[in-house]
Amino acid sequence: MPTIAYLGPPGSFSEAAALKVPLPDKTLVDYPTIPDVLEAADLGHTTFAIIPIENAIEGSVNLAMDWLIHEVRLMIFAEIVLPIAHGLYVAPPQRETPFPQIEKIFSHGQAIAQSFRFLRRTFPHAQVEPTLSTSEALRLVAENPDRPWAALGHRRGAERYGLVERIRDVQDSPNNATRFLLVGHTPPAGLPPSERKKTTLLVTLGRDFPGALSQVLHCFSWRAINLSRIESRPTKRRLGSYVFYIDIDRGVDDVLIPAAMEELRALGHEVRFLGSYPVYEVDDD
Amino acid sequence: MPTIAYLGPPGSFSEAAALKVPLPDKTLVDYPTIPDVLEAADLGHTTFAIIPIENAIEGSVNLAMDWLIHEVRLMIFAEIVLPIAHGLYVAPPQRETPFPQIEKIFSHGQAIAQSFRFLRRTFPHAQVEPTLSTSEALRLVAENPDRPWAALGHRRGAERYGLVERIRDVQDSPNNATRFLLVGHTPPAGLPPSERKKTTLLVTLGRDFPGALSQVLHCFSWRAINLSRIESRPTKRRLGSYVFYIDIDRGVDDVLIPAAMEELRALGHEVRFLGSYPVYEVDDD
Repeated sequence: MPTIAYLGPPGSFSEAAALKVPLPDKTLVDYPTIPDVLEAADLGHTTFAIIPIENAIEGSVNLAMDWLIHEVRLMIFAEIVLPIAHGLYVAPPQRETPFPQIEKIFSHGQAIAQSFRFLRRTFPHAQVEPTLSTSEALRLVAENPDRPWAALGHRRGAERYGLVERIRDVQDSPNNATRFLLVGHTPPAGLPPSERKKTTLLVTLGRDFPGALSQVLHCFSWRAINLSRIESRPTKRRLGSYVFYIDIDRGVDDVLIPAAMEELRALGHEVRFLGSYPVYEVDDD
Repeated sequence: MPTIAYLGPPGSFSEAAALKVPLPDKTLVDYPTIPDVLEAADLGHTTFAIIPIENAIEGSVNLAMDWLIHEVRLMIFAEIVLPIAHGLYVAPPQRETPFPQIEKIFSHGQAIAQSFRFLRRTFPHAQVEPTLSTSEALRLVAENPDRPWAALGHRRGAERYGLVERIRDVQDSPNNATRFLLVGHTPPAGLPPSERKKTTLLVTLGRDFPGALSQVLHCFSWRAINLSRIESRPTKRRLGSYVFYIDIDRGVDDVLIPAAMEELRALGHEVRFLGSYPVYEVDDD
């Protein structure tokens, strides 16, 4: 049975995404940091790892991307797009505590930032305290049921701690979703077909000259290969030297994408193929 | 006297960068989160704010960029490039404790990740515990001088807490630097001249078609305007819709950059000018 490493503790959004990987049998294993998660799969302690790659709540997504690019040699096998909704949760004795009497609200700094306007409007006088994860915020509130405290977090996590939902969907932006990547060394068997596919490449410019990036992009655009995302990340060689993380909005083909890759290499750029994979947009239920 | 908002607590890398802003008189004010820092300057509670924008240690740089783009209307007045070095610090009674007897090492998750290999090699058996900031890790160690604990953090912060340096420069990558931006509503008087200048633009594609980004970049490249960095950030309208954060490696001129901006607007793209500003590479002493 395949195992999937994820960023714990249990009750995190990463666990919610891992549960949604469309493989019938799987065992989840939690790790404390994103480097640990990726290394687990790289060293073969788990079959796969799942990491947040864009707009995640816990941990740094920059960190996930840097480790994927520089520290491990894993391929991407699937993308999971998970809607992210924070709720406001209290311990059962506080189920009727009026909002002005809530003294403290705990959550991860990213969840607090994503709900900044809500908190200021609804709890102008509460003390907002950051925790290391949304799960830890929920745990703190659950362990102090007699205090007028609340936590922002994920519904499934709150249920696990026996908390009561006071408000659903407190985040300021209505379209809050996080992209997760399933990565590993050996492709999983039995992934179902998907409507959307993506291909991801890493391109490092051979030398920096005006128009180098434009040259790279033109190589795709005249072939009508649409890039759905481009992100520059430091190469770690020096500040201001970049590797380009490029998402193409379709699966790899036999002719056009390989030709673009080959020509970029002939022009002196480094090109690394990270995978061609299905995209699953899932519900968070 | 101008005031500068920064991400606290005191002893953070953001404070080190704020101290390096080349203005003779300034008062620093610490705030608990990056949204708070930016809002302080946007609402006029402080004259300026300083935020980490790339490869920072504390907090999420994605968060800094998203707030700069979407939530405030501030201009960039300067960039400060600060070398980031983590040291390993202990309380005075532990100044000779052999490394194998160090039981716990505390630090912010980003500093831990940047020193992951060092920690595994030098302290394979120590328990590594994340804290909300490097300053908090230093404080924890200072408040428990009789325990065999250590913290990764910034030298000036460690001095403030009376800690002893056991190892300098523990980060895995030798070229670790963080870019900070000084932002505000009104340009500061008396910034010294600098060798390097930069110009920053935000471009939002009018509509998404294959080659749209290539069109935008070509508009700069044929004019020999070199882009030193391009980063795509979600527009927050929907996942997969992006605004491009573009750094040009020189100051704005009277002809070429304005013409490029005007033509991009005529082609239906949104262009926002974030500033043309000096870059200061400073020492962390």
